[in-house]
Amino acid sequence: MFADRLMESIKKKGNPSVLGLDPRPGMIPRCIRDVHGEDLGRAVFEFNKALIDAVADLVPAVKLQIAFYEALGLEGLRAYRETADYAKERGLLVIGDIKRGDISSTAEAYRDAHLFGHFRCDAVTLNPFLGYDSVEPFLKACSRDGKGVFILVKTSNPSSGDLQNLKVGDEYLYQYLAGKVAEWGRDLLGKYGYSSVGAVVGATYPGELKVLRRIMPHTPLLLPGYGAQGAGGRDVAAAFDDKGLGAVVNSSRALAGAYLRAEKPECVTVEEFKKYTRDEALRMRDDITDAIKNRDINMQGECQS
Amino acid sequence: MFADRLMESIKKKGNPSVLGLDPRPGMIPRCIRDVHGEDLGRAVFEFNKALIDAVADLVPAVKLQIAFYEALGLEGLRAYRETADYAKERGLLVIGDIKRGDISSTAEAYRDAHLFGHFRCDAVTLNPFLGYDSVEPFLKACSRDGKGVFILVKTSNPSSGDLQNLKVGDEYLYQYLAGKVAEWGRDLLGKYGYSSVGAVVGATYPGELKVLRRIMPHTPLLLPGYGAQGAGGRDVAAAFDDKGLGAVVNSSRALAGAYLRAEKPECVTVEEFKKYTRDEALRMRDDITDAIKNRDINMQGECQS
Repeated sequence: MFADRLMESIKKKGNPSVLGLDPRPGMIPRCIRDVHGEDLGRAVFEFNKALIDAVADLVPAVKLQIAFYEALGLEGLRAYRETADYAKERGLLVIGDIKRGDISSTAEAYRDAHLFGHFRCDAVTLNPFLGYDSVEPFLKACSRDGKGVFILVKTSNPSSGDLQNLKVGDEYLYQYLAGKVAEWGRDLLGKYGYSSVGAVVGATYPGELKVLRRIMPHTPLLLPGYGAQGAGGRDVAAAFDDKGLGAVVNSSRALAGAYLRAEKPECVTVEEFKKYTRDEALRMRDDITDAIKNRDINMQGECQS
Repeated sequence: MFADRLMESIKKKGNPSVLGLDPRPGMIPRCIRDVHGEDLGRAVFEFNKALIDAVADLVPAVKLQIAFYEALGLEGLRAYRETADYAKERGLLVIGDIKRGDISSTAEAYRDAHLFGHFRCDAVTLNPFLGYDSVEPFLKACSRDGKGVFILVKTSNPSSGDLQNLKVGDEYLYQYLAGKVAEWGRDLLGKYGYSSVGAVVGATYPGELKVLRRIMPHTPLLLPGYGAQGAGGRDVAAAFDDKGLGAVVNSSRALAGAYLRAEKPECVTVEEFKKYTRDEALRMRDDITDAIKNRDINMQGECQS
């Protein structure tokens, strides 16, 4: 099942970081872009391949934000599929960040497209605005076919509170939703105590994250917002259990753009590009695992003061 | 601007019906499927083309549910683009039913993809779960580039109440959201008194529709749920103003599957297929326009009884 594969992979790599693959054409280094000339789809795939090759032994999973591929049309979507297939070949779990949500017959079409059809992700992100019947076709894929989902609960963006922080009775909407997500995943628990029905919680809201972890103790959390959006290891530490399991943290721009720190970024070679990415991935891994280790010390400190 | 183009087109055709193009491969008649053999993308395009040709002089717009194209992979998405382009050639407005919603930099990528890039729709549907900054890049496209959006407010599916009908203060979430959508569209009003920022309201919830029309008097409504999902002309009548403007009603399965009423559906020719579609489109038009005309009589009746 998905939850177990994810937890095993985090354990094996000793790292809960996810490589986010959000190809902005302007971020592709010249050493890759120039070789593939006008074939942008190919350049995107080679860019992703270099990123994957740089960190495949370090991270458990990749997350592909499909919007950046759709923006490049059919060649972009071809690169999306090829990237997903390549990441699988390299032993990584593939999360399709599609945030779809639609009425049930349409949700079935999305499920078929992104889990079993042309695009074969291990898990996808879902938007819960349409309610249970929009999620249900995906839950079946979790129980029958070992797939996973991460349902939006509290997103990382500045306006996420517009709807998600509305007061519903005596709780916030995101808390209510967390209860639903926990309920939907109750029958899909694996041997590590986590469900294949996960939740997306922005690393940019560490206060909310702590509350949400309590409401959803068995829900794997996918945490975007680390790095370029501003969150660090201390902001995500509360998401993890004592074994360092239970969550994954995504970084996209900080990994793909690590080479921009070079003195002459336009001159870096592919090997140098990979080295910058790998160094940032190692820094991120240590930042998060240290924060988890030091969490208890910090918490003791808080209690004593 | 989009709102004016939509209202003018409704006025010219005397019809607020939208042809929904949701190609389920099993619904393509044999006369089209057999000719194009294993090229499913081509079969889907020819199916859509026959539907468009059948009703292009009758309806103001088409709506493409992108999930059914994604389910067919790259060849499906090629058919999506070709269908959108063909509908435009035939003078129809194109609504991409994509229901996207993401953080702002990602929303920009979706906007570029679906309004200006490979897929050039006149308007798209959006999911508001992530709040204002997820919608804002699209609002710019409405004001600067004459594009339109329809934001989900109350969807047509059975579970739509799970979130949308939560009580927020003394109103329902969908009512709160309607207020926001009206606010976001306030500066984008056209000469018919309607904004280029529209809302999606399920025709399957006529009670909610009446309330929402009052909260959003200047918001064009896109009403799914007519036909196969159960709603009829009387359910949507309250969405329209006295001139029959202000809303569009989508039907997909009832139009594309009208030929299934034939004695031997497997034997219908392309011309017969078009005739069945056209007859259903005419029936739908008359059903809705009659319901709008009779609305005032019915309302008087309600008052007298």
